[in-house]
Amino acid sequence: MSTLFDEIKPYMDKGMAAKAALTLLEWDQETSAPPMGAEWTAKIIGELSNVYLESMVNDDVKKKLEKLHSEKEFSQLSSIEQAIVKEWKNVIKQLEPIPQNEYQAYTELVAKAGNIWAKAKEKNDFSVFSPCLQEIVDYKRKFATYRKKAGKDRKIELYDILLEDYEPGFTTKKLDEFFEQIKKELVPFIQKIVKKSSKKNYCLPKAKYDIEKQREFCKWLAGYVGFDFSKGVLGESEHPFSTNLHNHDVRISNHFYEDNLESAIFSIIHETGHALYEFGIDNEITMTLVGFGTSMGMHESQSRFYENIIGRSEKFWKPIYSKLQETFPEQLENVSIKDFIHAINRVEPGMIRTEADELTYSLHVLVRYETEKMLLSKKIEVKDLPKVWNEKYQEYLGISPDSDKNGVLQDVHWACGDFGYFPSYALGTAISAQIYNNMLEIMPIEEYLESGNLLPIRDYLKEHIYQYGKRKNTNELLKEMTGEEFNASYYIQYLKEKYTRLYDSNEK
Amino acid sequence: MSTLFDEIKPYMDKGMAAKAALTLLEWDQETSAPPMGAEWTAKIIGELSNVYLESMVNDDVKKKLEKLHSEKEFSQLSSIEQAIVKEWKNVIKQLEPIPQNEYQAYTELVAKAGNIWAKAKEKNDFSVFSPCLQEIVDYKRKFATYRKKAGKDRKIELYDILLEDYEPGFTTKKLDEFFEQIKKELVPFIQKIVKKSSKKNYCLPKAKYDIEKQREFCKWLAGYVGFDFSKGVLGESEHPFSTNLHNHDVRISNHFYEDNLESAIFSIIHETGHALYEFGIDNEITMTLVGFGTSMGMHESQSRFYENIIGRSEKFWKPIYSKLQETFPEQLENVSIKDFIHAINRVEPGMIRTEADELTYSLHVLVRYETEKMLLSKKIEVKDLPKVWNEKYQEYLGISPDSDKNGVLQDVHWACGDFGYFPSYALGTAISAQIYNNMLEIMPIEEYLESGNLLPIRDYLKEHIYQYGKRKNTNELLKEMTGEEFNASYYIQYLKEKYTRLYDSNEK
Repeated sequence: MSTLFDEIKPYMDKGMAAKAALTLLEWDQETSAPPMGAEWTAKIIGELSNVYLESMVNDDVKKKLEKLHSEKEFSQLSSIEQAIVKEWKNVIKQLEPIPQNEYQAYTELVAKAGNIWAKAKEKNDFSVFSPCLQEIVDYKRKFATYRKKAGKDRKIELYDILLEDYEPGFTTKKLDEFFEQIKKELVPFIQKIVKKSSKKNYCLPKAKYDIEKQREFCKWLAGYVGFDFSKGVLGESEHPFSTNLHNHDVRISNHFYEDNLESAIFSIIHETGHALYEFGIDNEITMTLVGFGTSMGMHESQSRFYENIIGRSEKFWKPIYSKLQETFPEQLENVSIKDFIHAINRVEPGMIRTEADELTYSLHVLVRYETEKMLLSKKIEVKDLPKVWNEKYQEYLGISPDSDKNGVLQDVHWACGDFGYFPSYALGTAISAQIYNNMLEIMPIEEYLESGNLLPIRDYLKEHIYQYGKRKNTNELLKEMTGEEFNASYYIQYLKEKYTRLYDSNEK
Repeated sequence: MSTLFDEIKPYMDKGMAAKAALTLLEWDQETSAPPMGAEWTAKIIGELSNVYLESMVNDDVKKKLEKLHSEKEFSQLSSIEQAIVKEWKNVIKQLEPIPQNEYQAYTELVAKAGNIWAKAKEKNDFSVFSPCLQEIVDYKRKFATYRKKAGKDRKIELYDILLEDYEPGFTTKKLDEFFEQIKKELVPFIQKIVKKSSKKNYCLPKAKYDIEKQREFCKWLAGYVGFDFSKGVLGESEHPFSTNLHNHDVRISNHFYEDNLESAIFSIIHETGHALYEFGIDNEITMTLVGFGTSMGMHESQSRFYENIIGRSEKFWKPIYSKLQETFPEQLENVSIKDFIHAINRVEPGMIRTEADELTYSLHVLVRYETEKMLLSKKIEVKDLPKVWNEKYQEYLGISPDSDKNGVLQDVHWACGDFGYFPSYALGTAISAQIYNNMLEIMPIEEYLESGNLLPIRDYLKEHIYQYGKRKNTNELLKEMTGEEFNASYYIQYLKEKYTRLYDSNEK
């Protein structure tokens, strides 16, 4: 054990406690806090963010981290300590250039923004949210500029700096290439499939699906997929999401619609995928800086692996579809499992990202990616967003949102200050296909699904991804697991195969 | 505005934010957190308690508070600032003598103790909890001893020091007098009533009361009594309780039993009484040291005022009993409002404090008061508790608990480290009668109840008690409101009148 490391550890312990409290406050705001409390609670959030900042970034820590990072000291650290030191230096790089009072004001702003966004969405009025969003964007630009000035790379784009927070190692340049590939290979393919599918799209029966029954089924389904209720909690919120205080307290929320059965089912599988990741973090790194999923993209790869690759496959539903039918006998008795699978895989360009099918999903992300880049580089301002948004939807998805509520106001992310986050959704989706390709070679994954035994799948992912937390980054994990770094071609190939198969074999 | 005060205010802001986060963590532990998370979450609680401690008690604060308290500076402060300075000095007096590492270890211990207590209660096995409880008691004794040494009064009893935290101004001496009065005046009266009542006790029909319907009715009832859902949240927990992050985020929990309708109904009225107090705190003092109810006793006076004095009166139920009947038509159709009032006021010495009738309630507190005093003064140890407990129940209530679960393990309080807290329950009950006596002179309170208009009652209490928070102490508030300091005779008189009336007029 390093004495020097022991000296800075209490700073981390305090910082991580503040972060966990912030996580709980955020969870609580989304799932239960009273609406009129947000304004006051924002102050609590501001203060605790400050506690986090003061504890993680201060002269004593910086001095000692520099020493620990020197060759002589570093080699004496355990591999976990090494990972913590590296991560801590990253955190400092992100936070240090930002003046403390501005950081606190910013966190108080976003603590309030969620409510303002919700109000704007409810009223279907972007102008209710836009002044607040402009403030957030101004902070984002300012913070990125501070960080750019503090960094060595003068040519780096502001948007790259935001990406670093969510997807270390993935730059605008790499993402441009990735999205170019999607545009070039997927957009024409999608157009072909959409033409084919529009004639024979099969939907679940339009019916009322009792919410209490949905709630029960989804709870059961979470457990089936692997959610551990002794270490986790299910909640409800406007927008499903997942979070965690630590690996023994993982939380996912869902949202139920009486007229939409699919939404809650695939949300719960999605969020359970996130949860499995955090449950699987090794106890040795719990509540340390590296005791969380390595990146947003890798996290999203897990949620979307479970939601789409597994969760929308016939093999997955084979052992459990009858249970769903029993839950909704009137609605589903005449829906065969083939019909069901076809329905949950139908392709239909729509306005809402979270309701999008697997095939068109990345195009929703593409819209946001391009919009965010323009916003950061001041090519557009917040007031221009609805127009730009709608134009891009028209260009890539061939439809134009009928309202701001179903357009630019649909996601909560910008209200949380999460710019540079959306690309991770597409990236994660692509990563999940690369991982799946690897697993197909390693294990009889379809047999497991068919026999209702999901454990070996989870265990394999835990062994190769989850346990490490942030000790390894996305490309390191992928390289060790699949033999190569991120490669989007598995994703293109997966989609082409799946949808060619579905729209050839499933003629109705 | 005082510059010096402005210099210490940021310490308070940080401290109060940490305290609010701790409140949320506690609420969350009781209402939703996953069981396996508690061990890890205890670390978060320990760290945040430390943030609170460091922020509220440090050399800079102490130096500046002393200056602010000096005659010249003090007179320049606003009355709110003066109250904060006084309260802050109290907080320091309580916390300063305790070494920081011991305080943190203690908070981590009690953060875990709740789960251990729950397990012991579930298993009906005191030995599961006793080692943990002994640790808590050891800390309590040690901390009180530190504080005794730091104080000026060498003759003060250790138990007095604990009382200070909950009931400033009420010493063991005063409480001894209070409980002596109860023993002398109430015990014989109760024995007389019990003899009378045992022949003709009327209970609600033994039936199943659907929990979802109870939940709905209780939510409605909370609103009827005055709960503001835009600033408050209802939850569920093993043991009903109330808490608050600030006056715009007030939370109460309830517990439902299918075979017991009264439990949830009177719990929700009780907790709503607590909530009204916190809702009523003036915004000028929100999230300051004085922005909370002035004492546990005063708080309890409000919950028990609503639960018993109002909530068990016929006038209260007159406009709403039909709604309860409509909710449970099969169970209650043959129960007249007279029967109902008789049932909810029946006297029956029982084992469980929270289920106790209004008349025998203080005797449950008496048992705890005497037991705690013995524990603090080392006359007994934790291992002796079940025996002492059962003997005292036999002595005062004439019954002996059939199990630890229904005996010494029934309350969560000791697991939270709350020693010296129980007396406030009896004290608050007595205060509520004094307040009621005053209100009868001031306003047509029974008319208000009968017409379903509870607002003037709440407004009067807000004006004379709630708004001030800790700016005035219990006796100051009572003096200004009722013309005299605490006087237990109103309580004795109220009970004697009510139960004489009930058990004479309601012969069955």
